[in-house]
Amino acid sequence: MRFFSDNTGSASPEIMEAIREANHGLTVPYGEDEWTLRLDAALGAFFGTEVRAFPVVTGTAANALALATLIPPYGSIFCHQEAHIVTDECGAPGFFTGGAQLALLAGEHGRLDPGDFAVALAAHPTHVHSVQPAALSLTQASELGTVYRATELARLCELAHGRGLKVHMDGARFANAVVFLDCHPGDITWRAGIDVLSFGATKNGALGAEAVVFFDKALVRDFELRRKRAGHLLSKSRYVAAQLLAYVESGLWRRNAERTNRLAQRIARAAGAALLHPVEANEVFVNLGVRARQALRDRGFEFYDWGAESAGQGRFVVSWDQPEADVPALCEALARQ
Amino acid sequence: MRFFSDNTGSASPEIMEAIREANHGLTVPYGEDEWTLRLDAALGAFFGTEVRAFPVVTGTAANALALATLIPPYGSIFCHQEAHIVTDECGAPGFFTGGAQLALLAGEHGRLDPGDFAVALAAHPTHVHSVQPAALSLTQASELGTVYRATELARLCELAHGRGLKVHMDGARFANAVVFLDCHPGDITWRAGIDVLSFGATKNGALGAEAVVFFDKALVRDFELRRKRAGHLLSKSRYVAAQLLAYVESGLWRRNAERTNRLAQRIARAAGAALLHPVEANEVFVNLGVRARQALRDRGFEFYDWGAESAGQGRFVVSWDQPEADVPALCEALARQ
Amino acid sequence: MRFFSDNTGSASPEIMEAIREANHGLTVPYGEDEWTLRLDAALGAFFGTEVRAFPVVTGTAANALALATLIPPYGSIFCHQEAHIVTDECGAPGFFTGGAQLALLAGEHGRLDPGDFAVALAAHPTHVHSVQPAALSLTQASELGTVYRATELARLCELAHGRGLKVHMDGARFANAVVFLDCHPGDITWRAGIDVLSFGATKNGALGAEAVVFFDKALVRDFELRRKRAGHLLSKSRYVAAQLLAYVESGLWRRNAERTNRLAQRIARAAGAALLHPVEANEVFVNLGVRARQALRDRGFEFYDWGAESAGQGRFVVSWDQPEADVPALCEALARQ
Amino acid sequence: MRFFSDNTGSASPEIMEAIREANHGLTVPYGEDEWTLRLDAALGAFFGTEVRAFPVVTGTAANALALATLIPPYGSIFCHQEAHIVTDECGAPGFFTGGAQLALLAGEHGRLDPGDFAVALAAHPTHVHSVQPAALSLTQASELGTVYRATELARLCELAHGRGLKVHMDGARFANAVVFLDCHPGDITWRAGIDVLSFGATKNGALGAEAVVFFDKALVRDFELRRKRAGHLLSKSRYVAAQLLAYVESGLWRRNAERTNRLAQRIARAAGAALLHPVEANEVFVNLGVRARQALRDRGFEFYDWGAESAGQGRFVVSWDQPEADVPALCEALARQ
Repeated sequence: MRFFSDNTGSASPEIMEAIREANHGLTVPYGEDEWTLRLDAALGAFFGTEVRAFPVVTGTAANALALATLIPPYGSIFCHQEAHIVTDECGAPGFFTGGAQLALLAGEHGRLDPGDFAVALAAHPTHVHSVQPAALSLTQASELGTVYRATELARLCELAHGRGLKVHMDGARFANAVVFLDCHPGDITWRAGIDVLSFGATKNGALGAEAVVFFDKALVRDFELRRKRAGHLLSKSRYVAAQLLAYVESGLWRRNAERTNRLAQRIARAAGAALLHPVEANEVFVNLGVRARQALRDRGFEFYDWGAESAGQGRFVVSWDQPEADVPALCEALARQ
Repeated sequence: MRFFSDNTGSASPEIMEAIREANHGLTVPYGEDEWTLRLDAALGAFFGTEVRAFPVVTGTAANALALATLIPPYGSIFCHQEAHIVTDECGAPGFFTGGAQLALLAGEHGRLDPGDFAVALAAHPTHVHSVQPAALSLTQASELGTVYRATELARLCELAHGRGLKVHMDGARFANAVVFLDCHPGDITWRAGIDVLSFGATKNGALGAEAVVFFDKALVRDFELRRKRAGHLLSKSRYVAAQLLAYVESGLWRRNAERTNRLAQRIARAAGAALLHPVEANEVFVNLGVRARQALRDRGFEFYDWGAESAGQGRFVVSWDQPEADVPALCEALARQ
Repeated sequence: MRFFSDNTGSASPEIMEAIREANHGLTVPYGEDEWTLRLDAALGAFFGTEVRAFPVVTGTAANALALATLIPPYGSIFCHQEAHIVTDECGAPGFFTGGAQLALLAGEHGRLDPGDFAVALAAHPTHVHSVQPAALSLTQASELGTVYRATELARLCELAHGRGLKVHMDGARFANAVVFLDCHPGDITWRAGIDVLSFGATKNGALGAEAVVFFDKALVRDFELRRKRAGHLLSKSRYVAAQLLAYVESGLWRRNAERTNRLAQRIARAAGAALLHPVEANEVFVNLGVRARQALRDRGFEFYDWGAESAGQGRFVVSWDQPEADVPALCEALARQ
Repeated sequence: MRFFSDNTGSASPEIMEAIREANHGLTVPYGEDEWTLRLDAALGAFFGTEVRAFPVVTGTAANALALATLIPPYGSIFCHQEAHIVTDECGAPGFFTGGAQLALLAGEHGRLDPGDFAVALAAHPTHVHSVQPAALSLTQASELGTVYRATELARLCELAHGRGLKVHMDGARFANAVVFLDCHPGDITWRAGIDVLSFGATKNGALGAEAVVFFDKALVRDFELRRKRAGHLLSKSRYVAAQLLAYVESGLWRRNAERTNRLAQRIARAAGAALLHPVEANEVFVNLGVRARQALRDRGFEFYDWGAESAGQGRFVVSWDQPEADVPALCEALARQ
């Protein structure tokens, strides 16, 4: 029973159907096809404002390209010390930006505290010997399965914008956050002050599709050239665009996120006091102890260890197509600990 | 009738079927799935030697990642002045390598002449004030629809290796070249001395799949880190790998290339004396004259102008799924000029 | 007798004196000292307009930093195919810009022809698959010892600016050009449309000092950060600034350039019909023939071969401190050929 | 009275004399002159082993070029969180390496603890999603004026080498460390396992001269090309080399460091209990309190605040040419607090 990542999932039937429908005839390549050309309108409707949206195939590409568009090579990017851009992208932000530095902040349950950010921002030097504060990158839902409230985001963005920084959101699990908050997608993006969003679909049922969504359209031309130059402009763009259209227009984003959030809640209840973080998306972090953790593994549960080996913690992620029986089995096993 | 690029094509039924078959259940992400793990063996069988093969989704990524693995940032890459890496990748080699320079060579019909390369190589400075000769990049089939013979490739590789350069092949239309030469894929790659191949499938019927194929395996770990860092390691790698497996194992590569080569020959015959280059793959370059070119357009033929506006030349590319009626229509129109 | 480069020269007495005068007491480092702070005014007076001027210690740094400030990583820099940035800086523009590409142009006697540039500029693609026309870099005096007239520069700048390109001038031998033209330094820089100048002093008598001079001041902050980041902001900046102040304020630039231009003219007259390019600065290119060239060497003349080995050409450069007897000796030897 | 940096200092008479002596006649440029060619032997004698040594003009250049030579772009550099490469070089390591990441470690009094490093090294991931442990950078003397003992260095190097990392030492104040330890320069470099040293002279009496000293000579060619490409190969290299020769051969390094260390000790005694770190070089960190700090300033002492504004700490650095009367004046003022 595989709980180690929502990247284990397959592609949803709606996604496969969209690809199939797009698969006929000769079309204009490199994003000039009818599917890609419809993305701005479709995602604009989804977010409730005008946007420019660009398909790419990985979250790393979405994040690093967005950041490279926002900041100069000597920029400093504030982010949580456990952010994906810090720990899981092999230094992609450094590569795409030409050497920008990450300014790491701690923050309970994977979220940055506006007060801490204000202090760090005020303390960051701006003389010529230092990298320059240039962007804030927030992850929604966070790497620890928690979710920022709209007011927290607004406060963080306000602080950033007040010092001339741009704000990027890594929304690899954005749908889970919207579903948890039961809010409008615009509430936790442009209305809160986000400039650019990495809007993930792959983890939540797509075959391989993310969109970089610009609420600040001045940056778009620079982005397009950087994307091409990085090998992320697909000739047969229609197949990625079609996935994104199906994802937002068929309600797939919501259906899948509702299921994975719901199942994660069940696991959370089973974990009880062993829970390390509030469960607000589809990830559950549990303090098991080294021995119990091994016991779980021996019973066929696959998941990642978290933190130091000796801490005995584990991460469980629910995929959109997690077999129904997996979750009660895990709950029962956890409850037994 | 669309003849402007083989990127206009859709995905072959065999490819769609392979994606469908891969689409079940939770699997290990990031290339540890059973499909991706099978690539080395499948491509090894195809090329007749041990290889390490890595899926990516664009030719630009394949080319630039391969080159960045082969050379230092101060390297100089010899290539034809009309190579895709020069004119169509928005400077990707410069970005991925950290600023390498391209040493452009002329060459009839899009191919480098070994003699010219020998001269240029001998003349390239190697003192500390100069970028350093580091790689040769060859395109097979070339950008002008011609094909290097195995002996030419061997001679070019020998010259390059003799001076310590690595050799990269951009094989965006590799299948067309093999079909034209009626040779074994190994004959024009590792047997000739190629170190790394960008093995394209997208233009020839895949949905979006290229493989970077290493015949020199020492470089593989560096490549893997660069690929991840560039956002080109897909979490759901199985869907790209499955395409590549179907492409080589079902013979799709050959069937599609045979059809497009054959149709290109028909167009070539119709073009007659107006032909600009030998037609050895699926591209036909024709000297039309400005007026006749416009007349063709007015009759509904879509294609790219080539060279200077006033030269009146046009490029026609046959897609794997080119409607059967398109070609006789074009032939008739060309014959009429 | 050394004629192979003006880099062989020592430091002028005026330069040594300026360093000595600056050498007392504790001062504010990193360019906040009184010498560096006076540079804007001193170079502003020299050029006859407000400027921002920044000392660095090599021409490669000046050129590459200036270009990196002017253009994005996906920019294309038009320049003469024999420009220093192409052949003698080990790819520095690619490194500093993050991978920009050089668009090489031919041009008689080392100078770009405005008509040729207009054609190349019009032909350069601007779609997303191509690097984007971003800057024009001109060398004054050129690498072949010739000098652009003010009207030629104005025309080149007009063409560049008309398409949104910035214009950089590599002025490693700028003083020689001003002396040859007998013009005001402003006439061939800002009045002609130059945006940024690499103003060289090292070849013309300084110990090690170049200034990057911005006529377009919007770019200055970006430059300052890039300079620091590249290790080109000196802690003891006063010693470089003091050289530049002495260079422009004592008339040293003119005295040295007048001498080297004058001596070069003598050599040119001796070379007579063997001259390859008009001699308008301190460099003389001579067609000697392989045998005569060797004979010159055997008699103790040191100089660089130029072009292909078999062409039998040589370059002779006069240093500001070229021993007086060297030139008649060379003239006599050349006349004898 | 200026205590804010040893960068405020002038050039020592020995340095000026060496420059004067080098200033005659035409010589071969770009490091092929007799002074630069003597560097390897002179620094080899100084360190007691064969070395390859290269002059540059800033510590930032020395550090970043050395690191770029040691590691791949996806490398991770372990260093103290207050290291110069982290806080004072505007992201130079990121620029020169092509985006490497810094792995910041805490450590009392500016020094890394081998135990902490061992833990961090063991915990650093090496899977493809992470930057790869590649180098350890140590600062000797440290940014907080303390000095590693030879055994500590040996232990740190052993840990690093054991995992395949290279070790760089930032020796901007290397002479102060040697004088404090009363050891041989080899004891705290190659004998301890250092691979490359940034050997600073500028802060300790040179006009502008640092050497990158390779104990691991395999890396040298790569370094030379990177240096040229970064604009750090000086045409008139003799003037920098001459400084370095005088610095090590005349004993200047020792005389100046002995004076500044000694004066720093006097200040340390005056500061007494207010001292924040052991004083082992020429820097003194004092806990003054906000009010007393301001009082010191009002009396004409110039120095940097350290840490948070409200912490009331100050840093005092003794220059090699610190006027003799400054120190008793400061001591008296500190004693009065």
